Amino acid sequence: MSFQTNPTIEMLRAHRSIRKFEDRPVEDETVQQIVACGQAAATSSNVQAVSVIQVKSPERRQRLAELAGGQGYVASAGAFLVYCADLKRSAAACASQGGEFEPGMTEHFIIATVDVGLSAQTAVIAAESMGLGICYIGGLRNHPAEVSELLQLPEQVYPVFGLCLGYPAQDPEVKPRLAVESVLMQEVYDTESQAGHIADYDKQLSAYYQSRTGGTKDSNWSQEMKALVGKESRPHMSGFLKDRGFTMR
Amino acid sequence: MSFQTNPTIEMLRAHRSIRKFEDRPVEDETVQQIVACGQAAATSSNVQAVSVIQVKSPERRQRLAELAGGQGYVASAGAFLVYCADLKRSAAACASQGGEFEPGMTEHFIIATVDVGLSAQTAVIAAESMGLGICYIGGLRNHPAEVSELLQLPEQVYPVFGLCLGYPAQDPEVKPRLAVESVLMQEVYDTESQAGHIADYDKQLSAYYQSRTGGTKDSNWSQEMKALVGKESRPHMSGFLKDRGFTMR
Repeated sequence: MSFQTNPTIEMLRAHRSIRKFEDRPVEDETVQQIVACGQAAATSSNVQAVSVIQVKSPERRQRLAELAGGQGYVASAGAFLVYCADLKRSAAACASQGGEFEPGMTEHFIIATVDVGLSAQTAVIAAESMGLGICYIGGLRNHPAEVSELLQLPEQVYPVFGLCLGYPAQDPEVKPRLAVESVLMQEVYDTESQAGHIADYDKQLSAYYQSRTGGTKDSNWSQEMKALVGKESRPHMSGFLKDRGFTMR
Repeated sequence: MSFQTNPTIEMLRAHRSIRKFEDRPVEDETVQQIVACGQAAATSSNVQAVSVIQVKSPERRQRLAELAGGQGYVASAGAFLVYCADLKRSAAACASQGGEFEPGMTEHFIIATVDVGLSAQTAVIAAESMGLGICYIGGLRNHPAEVSELLQLPEQVYPVFGLCLGYPAQDPEVKPRLAVESVLMQEVYDTESQAGHIADYDKQLSAYYQSRTGGTKDSNWSQEMKALVGKESRPHMSGFLKDRGFTMR
């Protein structure tokens, strides 16, 4: 298959998470530019339901690293951002016009969560275009109430994930993904061919782990998925979100 | 403020939605490359909870355009993709290892929805780097059950949004956003300064609408937000998602 390519596409396809960073901060102007690039992404009805908390305080960074499950790079990365889904700002704008914010809509939750995804990923690509490395920190959802308290997040705002940025001090391989034919379907959902794609990918990922670890890591995608979706995952999230005004009605 | 820049950053900051396209299709190889770039984005625990349905059938495209609220470019764009949050594939992988999928977790819903956002936005940036224009179609959530039926989506899969791709036949202005100082906060959430940022942005957006429409559109962000979050929005989403296996527990 001959694919159209260009330097941006080559960069996108070369993405891998970075978890070891040089011991130097990312400059404030650089962080501003990265976040501003994220703001330029599409946003549902221009709601811009995103707030970003940059944490520099070493004590707060250390605490966030612990809350995220002991991920030391949360404390050591050149910059650390917390991407929050934020309906409070639009609620305030609504109130300034005499309107009354309608809380707890599932649709607003989706809009805000998607907005954060689009904005953060655009910021990530901006950062990578500058030679920085990144790592998303979903582990902030291990203890979202404590994270919210630490960052003084008001109601109608929740921390979706953290983002480590920094100058890479490692160069890991790109992890193989499912075949594009598994993900891209024509006209209707293709259930039939998934078992074959999964079996192929299991073999590929298993070989990748074997070669990377000198044979000590023996796993594949299906085993990973059993560990991930074969049990309850962060069962506190539903109650936490309700407490913060996201009742999902 | 002197910002670090490069061609990727200039492209990211120049984003605007395109709703008029040249009458020519986007080639299959190009769509594959775009979707594959999206697959290279970060994904929570490698779950890759994304499926993309490409719709070419003119009848199905027309029907989707109607379901999205009469957005004609859904039918006329050079390519149309439906980005779906997909836990079915990982559930099948889990089952292949003798595991039992744990349905309805809010956390899994967040993971899958964020995965779709990161993957789609990376695909969008790949498309824009090739000179294509794009428009997200959140309007698919107007009638998500009908969309799901039309695309034969199984349980544990929901359509998050559509994506129009095509060669641009218009060159709209970039829409101004909130000041970066409104969105990027230091150490803790900054409630105090938001009213000022909102007032400034209201003036800026009002002027933008006035100049774009020769004075006929008189609106600002706060008015738009009153219309968006000051009333119920897609109240069917909660019931729809429950029906599809996303109970948000």
